[in-house]
Amino acid sequence: MPRLTDGQRDAALALAHHLADAAREETLAHFRSPGLGADSKLNEGFDPVTIADRAAEERMRAILAAQRPQDAVLGEETGASEGTSGLTWVLDPIDGTRGYLSGTPTWGVLIALSDRDGPFLGIIDQPYIGERFVGAPGLARMTGPRGAVTLKTRPARPMAEAIVFTTFPEVGTPEDGAAFRRVSRAARLTRYGMDCYAYALLAAGQIDLVIEAGLQPYDIQAPIAVIEAAGGIVTDWQGGPAHMGGRALAAANPAIHAEALALLNA
Amino acid sequence: MPRLTDGQRDAALALAHHLADAAREETLAHFRSPGLGADSKLNEGFDPVTIADRAAEERMRAILAAQRPQDAVLGEETGASEGTSGLTWVLDPIDGTRGYLSGTPTWGVLIALSDRDGPFLGIIDQPYIGERFVGAPGLARMTGPRGAVTLKTRPARPMAEAIVFTTFPEVGTPEDGAAFRRVSRAARLTRYGMDCYAYALLAAGQIDLVIEAGLQPYDIQAPIAVIEAAGGIVTDWQGGPAHMGGRALAAANPAIHAEALALLNA
Repeated sequence: MPRLTDGQRDAALALAHHLADAAREETLAHFRSPGLGADSKLNEGFDPVTIADRAAEERMRAILAAQRPQDAVLGEETGASEGTSGLTWVLDPIDGTRGYLSGTPTWGVLIALSDRDGPFLGIIDQPYIGERFVGAPGLARMTGPRGAVTLKTRPARPMAEAIVFTTFPEVGTPEDGAAFRRVSRAARLTRYGMDCYAYALLAAGQIDLVIEAGLQPYDIQAPIAVIEAAGGIVTDWQGGPAHMGGRALAAANPAIHAEALALLNA
Repeated sequence: MPRLTDGQRDAALALAHHLADAAREETLAHFRSPGLGADSKLNEGFDPVTIADRAAEERMRAILAAQRPQDAVLGEETGASEGTSGLTWVLDPIDGTRGYLSGTPTWGVLIALSDRDGPFLGIIDQPYIGERFVGAPGLARMTGPRGAVTLKTRPARPMAEAIVFTTFPEVGTPEDGAAFRRVSRAARLTRYGMDCYAYALLAAGQIDLVIEAGLQPYDIQAPIAVIEAAGGIVTDWQGGPAHMGGRALAAANPAIHAEALALLNA
């Protein structure tokens, strides 16, 4: 159900592309540079924040402040700013900072537009490859090195033939990890380390499941919009909404979603 | 020490590029196609072989048979064919078939030229991104979406600041896995799932270590040539030659290599 008229949707899409273009410039300016620094935001674990991360969010926020002052903004780097329209732009300038710091082409810029029911428009952008995955009501499309392709999740297949992705083998708490491994053992293939790129591959019909835990809203909102537009399903591990973060189960179709949900809760 | 004259080296490089171009065509023709099939070569585990894998090796072998009938060829798909020159072309048409089947841009075409002491010329090609990493005596260079860059491994830094890659969290036998985890725990960051792309990132100065087990000669010979040309070191886990496969420790510099070797054997 579109929450905007076609004209409003197209204006929002144009703005989302503009944001992604700006973030692409800022993130590429520092990608694979030898002297890239990283602070540690958290005392435990490794959560690098780069100059690029901050610069990309600042650029996007400046554009939104100028063009959509009525909308709220939620960003990874500088938190929430309020609006009056009921709409929120949800920004993660570099999802996958560990991948970014390692030079892998698996990080991405995440941009979503949400109302109180969740995200309905999203972009996953991989600046280095030059790939952009876009989802909105009535639109599911990627552009990349080989031109434009319609995004369509893959049809149902048995779990024994399914490909599952998650970013870290540990997958959240020990209980989360045990639940993940029940799915992983039943699947044909489990792969790691793709950051937000795994959600893009799901939307593009390449894989069947992405299962993660410990997410922030800005990690998952753009993937939700892109995957839903492509025909997939994203919920938490109980089958409820996933857009507030935490644990996410992204699936190519209802059958594999139901099978994974049952295994996670077995 | 170059094993060829400059002219011979340049001719070999030109031929290696020609092979990589041919393999790029064949592998891209099937990458991300919806109906991609996969046989299972082994009874245990998951080792997909695609049409693309076979077609790419056939194309490369046909070129070599026509242009260098005096050289031996060792390829993943069709094994060894003998030569009289003392030189062997070592080919892996798709290193990272699991990544290829999942749509990730982390697989690659591997091409090496070796004499009895090991590889001295190599290419790691990522066809989808359009990146090619080349190493030969006196040459270490990549071309990609942002043009050409000289490859140079990163200088020494403490293990506590090092980035380590391996493809699967399991890393070989249980003993191999335990040894790997000694390095992983001492390092700043461990990442998975990059296939041969991890070696390319090491050559490009982005990461410090790649540690793997269970390799075939065609998995590691091109990475050895590229990494050594860029200033790095590749050995087995005892510090000996790695070009016959098995366990490999690829390092950006002698200091981090020595530290990793000590931890692997602690």
